[in-house]
Amino acid sequence: MGNLPHTMKAVVKELPGKGFALKEVPVPLPGPHEVLIRVTAASICGTDALIDEWSPWAEERIKTPRIIGHEFAGEVAEVGRDVVGIEAGQRVSAESHFFCGSCYQCRTGNHEVCRDVRIMGVDADGSFAQFVKVPASNIWPNHPDIPDHIASIQEPLGNAIDTVLAEDVAGKNVLITGMGPIGLMCTAVARACGATRIIVTDPNEYRLLLAEKLGADIVINPRVTPIGGPVLTATGGNGADVLLEVSGNESALKEALPLVTPGGRVSLLGIFKGPASINLNNDIIFRKLRVYGITGRKVFRTWQTASRLLCSGRLDLAPLVTHELPLSEFEQGFNLMHTGRCGKVIFRP
Amino acid sequence: MGNLPHTMKAVVKELPGKGFALKEVPVPLPGPHEVLIRVTAASICGTDALIDEWSPWAEERIKTPRIIGHEFAGEVAEVGRDVVGIEAGQRVSAESHFFCGSCYQCRTGNHEVCRDVRIMGVDADGSFAQFVKVPASNIWPNHPDIPDHIASIQEPLGNAIDTVLAEDVAGKNVLITGMGPIGLMCTAVARACGATRIIVTDPNEYRLLLAEKLGADIVINPRVTPIGGPVLTATGGNGADVLLEVSGNESALKEALPLVTPGGRVSLLGIFKGPASINLNNDIIFRKLRVYGITGRKVFRTWQTASRLLCSGRLDLAPLVTHELPLSEFEQGFNLMHTGRCGKVIFRP
Amino acid sequence: MGNLPHTMKAVVKELPGKGFALKEVPVPLPGPHEVLIRVTAASICGTDALIDEWSPWAEERIKTPRIIGHEFAGEVAEVGRDVVGIEAGQRVSAESHFFCGSCYQCRTGNHEVCRDVRIMGVDADGSFAQFVKVPASNIWPNHPDIPDHIASIQEPLGNAIDTVLAEDVAGKNVLITGMGPIGLMCTAVARACGATRIIVTDPNEYRLLLAEKLGADIVINPRVTPIGGPVLTATGGNGADVLLEVSGNESALKEALPLVTPGGRVSLLGIFKGPASINLNNDIIFRKLRVYGITGRKVFRTWQTASRLLCSGRLDLAPLVTHELPLSEFEQGFNLMHTGRCGKVIFRP
Amino acid sequence: MGNLPHTMKAVVKELPGKGFALKEVPVPLPGPHEVLIRVTAASICGTDALIDEWSPWAEERIKTPRIIGHEFAGEVAEVGRDVVGIEAGQRVSAESHFFCGSCYQCRTGNHEVCRDVRIMGVDADGSFAQFVKVPASNIWPNHPDIPDHIASIQEPLGNAIDTVLAEDVAGKNVLITGMGPIGLMCTAVARACGATRIIVTDPNEYRLLLAEKLGADIVINPRVTPIGGPVLTATGGNGADVLLEVSGNESALKEALPLVTPGGRVSLLGIFKGPASINLNNDIIFRKLRVYGITGRKVFRTWQTASRLLCSGRLDLAPLVTHELPLSEFEQGFNLMHTGRCGKVIFRP
Repeated sequence: MGNLPHTMKAVVKELPGKGFALKEVPVPLPGPHEVLIRVTAASICGTDALIDEWSPWAEERIKTPRIIGHEFAGEVAEVGRDVVGIEAGQRVSAESHFFCGSCYQCRTGNHEVCRDVRIMGVDADGSFAQFVKVPASNIWPNHPDIPDHIASIQEPLGNAIDTVLAEDVAGKNVLITGMGPIGLMCTAVARACGATRIIVTDPNEYRLLLAEKLGADIVINPRVTPIGGPVLTATGGNGADVLLEVSGNESALKEALPLVTPGGRVSLLGIFKGPASINLNNDIIFRKLRVYGITGRKVFRTWQTASRLLCSGRLDLAPLVTHELPLSEFEQGFNLMHTGRCGKVIFRP
Repeated sequence: MGNLPHTMKAVVKELPGKGFALKEVPVPLPGPHEVLIRVTAASICGTDALIDEWSPWAEERIKTPRIIGHEFAGEVAEVGRDVVGIEAGQRVSAESHFFCGSCYQCRTGNHEVCRDVRIMGVDADGSFAQFVKVPASNIWPNHPDIPDHIASIQEPLGNAIDTVLAEDVAGKNVLITGMGPIGLMCTAVARACGATRIIVTDPNEYRLLLAEKLGADIVINPRVTPIGGPVLTATGGNGADVLLEVSGNESALKEALPLVTPGGRVSLLGIFKGPASINLNNDIIFRKLRVYGITGRKVFRTWQTASRLLCSGRLDLAPLVTHELPLSEFEQGFNLMHTGRCGKVIFRP
Repeated sequence: MGNLPHTMKAVVKELPGKGFALKEVPVPLPGPHEVLIRVTAASICGTDALIDEWSPWAEERIKTPRIIGHEFAGEVAEVGRDVVGIEAGQRVSAESHFFCGSCYQCRTGNHEVCRDVRIMGVDADGSFAQFVKVPASNIWPNHPDIPDHIASIQEPLGNAIDTVLAEDVAGKNVLITGMGPIGLMCTAVARACGATRIIVTDPNEYRLLLAEKLGADIVINPRVTPIGGPVLTATGGNGADVLLEVSGNESALKEALPLVTPGGRVSLLGIFKGPASINLNNDIIFRKLRVYGITGRKVFRTWQTASRLLCSGRLDLAPLVTHELPLSEFEQGFNLMHTGRCGKVIFRP
Repeated sequence: MGNLPHTMKAVVKELPGKGFALKEVPVPLPGPHEVLIRVTAASICGTDALIDEWSPWAEERIKTPRIIGHEFAGEVAEVGRDVVGIEAGQRVSAESHFFCGSCYQCRTGNHEVCRDVRIMGVDADGSFAQFVKVPASNIWPNHPDIPDHIASIQEPLGNAIDTVLAEDVAGKNVLITGMGPIGLMCTAVARACGATRIIVTDPNEYRLLLAEKLGADIVINPRVTPIGGPVLTATGGNGADVLLEVSGNESALKEALPLVTPGGRVSLLGIFKGPASINLNNDIIFRKLRVYGITGRKVFRTWQTASRLLCSGRLDLAPLVTHELPLSEFEQGFNLMHTGRCGKVIFRP
């Protein structure tokens, strides 16, 4: 392993329960088909916050100890014995879903819903560390024009892209509920791809300001203004052609569905606290809506789109990255996420 | 109006409340853009049964007196002054959704969700009568090879076609919940269009027998056998590629959604009694499903498909038409519908 | 007809042969389903130039005398007896394809290829006149935020939109051959809808300059530089994901096809001088390309997209309108078109 | 290598020029990611016939000596060191395109047009032999209900499926030009997937008889009857909704294109002798056709569809397999192919 260190710093969930610890742990050894990457930037996802809080989902899914984090950019430190086409020193990011390649889903081009998926930072050690190892088949070479702090958010950008572009948005009026980081990215992507009226909602004024910077035409705080009136006014009474639900908030969804124009489209990405009660008759069936559940990213079609939108300058996510911190200040990073007074928070290990 | 009678027999909802009456009423006068049709066959739809029972929906929607019925075939008796291209004596059926032609939906090719739609037999007098008038733009000329009792069910067949063919079914495993007449039609359409495993569910054994005649590979009575095991066995453990929900039964939907393979597709046509509680996370989002609300039919693309499937013999719906009755026996017809021991019931006015 | 004049000025092809004449002719009388419009802006199309030159196509198709022109904006002057929903004084443009509404194409949503289409300014009198009459079903209400000189080019913009958006262009590298007015519009539309690299070709340097103003990333004069090298360089060696052929030049097409990446897409809009010799094996089949022939516009889905892109400001076609002339200077307008030192030329009748 | 023989019989192109030889050659040794298969059935493709004849394409592409053949079924004899999930004794076929997995095409789900593709029996030794080795990632497990002689034609069936199902054919009128084995398969697939009128053309009466057995509604010998009349009659004057060009004959294509209804679809699979002269204006652009170049198969989505259509019994290709021969009679097999008095010819090594 030459001049690589033997240990590294990492943010670890040591035991079941709230919180993380910064630990000195062994640098992982890449297997024959794996790649070891020196992490230069790693961003916090809402999922990481759930693991921090030890939500019921986290409690059921996470085996401790576990290094978390799954959005990152870095530099190849070492490649496994059988890896071809990847070289030490290369700037890379990685698809966080480690797919099996042989299930029904993988064999028919749906790797993002692989039956045996293992997720980095959830089911395998992740990227809030100085080094991370990933399967060679998950490596995405970063474009020279995309700096690392932006490259590290290509992974969630992929979610946003699949959410927005489940169907074409050119010339469409788009309603986006939820201005968390992915909602903000959806706003920017919709703007870059020709949506002609972008209406966004969130109770967080800080995020609404960010949304305006990223291309929203109309921002609504639903705690202040019921969204029905503004949406209908902004769409000439027709309602939105497209609803992107990124809040995971049942009330937001129920308020938004009747504002989708009959024949329109919905993408669902936000994760809900529990089952949601939906008026399928009036809101889906009689409206003839098309509803897309969105998870993961197309490997690597979506990455291709993400990379090109970024390096062409059509998409400028610089305003979204509001904080950069050393790994040692991880607690401050998670606090920012919990307060919501941030866009993307990036660690610099 | 020459040798046309001045009055006719019709099944009428005279006043709010349960039931209908057979009345002698004036033959309608077609306006300049309308066509008067002598009805030769008219079939009962589940909607008609709701109006019979005076369901909450009917109570809110129906203005009395109203002649009901919206599925039919007949012969043109008279054409309005400004109608071109339609002639007396022609064999026709009609699209039951009278669309405005000028709303946002109509202008963008979504007539089936016209904002100002008026439905025959609901918002305008219908076809359980010796004559019915419809806008000329709704007329569908019947193919000579399709007899009237089959032609009268092209309208609901259109619903089934849009439900099945929201996406291609060739080579797909299809689960259909609900073997009412439209579910039965879905079964036959899926079979004609290349679905390779068709699994259907219904608590009504009479309908399951019909389903087998119409092409189902596997029939399940969910009151006898939980559907999970047979569906997984029949699909090699993958689950169904396609779910067609035609029951309007919340439990059926909730039992079926987890049996759709990740990346699969759902069509929703069945009307539910109230809001349904859905686990959006596990059943839609993490499965990356595509869900289509289905209502009405594409005017006239779906009619084209219906007509061709029928007259080519690829689709044989003869087993579905289990009863033919004179209009005077309308009560027996509705009783059959309520018991469920029937396929399609056709009146011969 | 109240205070409308009895005669008007119009650009007329009086007899077979080259050229037009400015004539005083009767103001048309709208039929019961027609609308009379006072033309305020009318733009020249390449088709008009072919009629001017009396090309073989024009010689075969045009019956004289004929008022030409089919792209325009204006104000409703009078509505026919049976027209509803359109009022005098309304600002409007119109779909130039008068479709029958009853052929196989019209009945299945393909009005743009109506079997019995009559085209304004070709098969019926057109808009290079102070007044023009069109069927009410062809009227498109202009949005208040779109001025008339821009509203008059919505019709060809629709061609460009259908050419670009035959499939999604977000994140795609696009090669456009031919920078006539529609090629220029394609450039601007591709830019507005998320194409990440837009490479355009034309031998006319004036037009290449316009292309840069409208959003082209790379402009190539194929008389100066063979296009292969720059296209491959600009696409990382992959070739273009999308080819938009708007030149109607066989050599341009043959040079461009091998530069489309395997699995890519082609839209064909440019009209060719005669049959083109295509290497179907290497250029279409083994590349697994999808090729779309484009004609007309979706009625009115494409108009909707055009209007929204314009009034939202996502699409700014101001640089494209290089000349505005009174109708009396029609000869200068056509001269400009023949020299190619212009974008869109607009008459102000 | 245990009880495997060291040598085997194989049909080999030994030197540039016409013909093959049956040779005793070494059994191939599988590499770490490869699988060795004992071939039990191998079918002749038109490509093999081109290599036999030493066509210009073959002369340019084939390096001798080369064992040919790329359609087969067999049993796994040995698996390479790093192969997981495949076992000796398993019944398998294989995708014949050995794709690189890392080019732009492979990374975006278009493996069938991999930039560095190597084709079995063309660029690598093939399956007209007792054993063949293939990359593990190309293995397709055969369904128990599909016998080997049918399993061996899943590969070309995949071509037919992609040709037919480039878009849905349910309720469509389909014209198929060319009744070679793939055209015959297209006929059967179109029939199984709901095409309502299937019109096929070929000058070979033997093949037209086979076409009728496989589901054609109307067969036309274009040397006897010009196809225009029958096609228009059979489609009510509208023309075909779908053209599947599988002949590679320029005249057939030129005769067929004007018979496609405006707004229709074309799939091109047949390989042409040279560039074809196409009237793009009238035949593609003004008709607003969509044209799909078809090559290879979707890995493994198309294989999935092929396998299911076969084992469900929806597709019965038994009539297509007209001859089975031992490998030693390979010359008779190729003679049959050259005369055209055969469907699929299968070797039993």
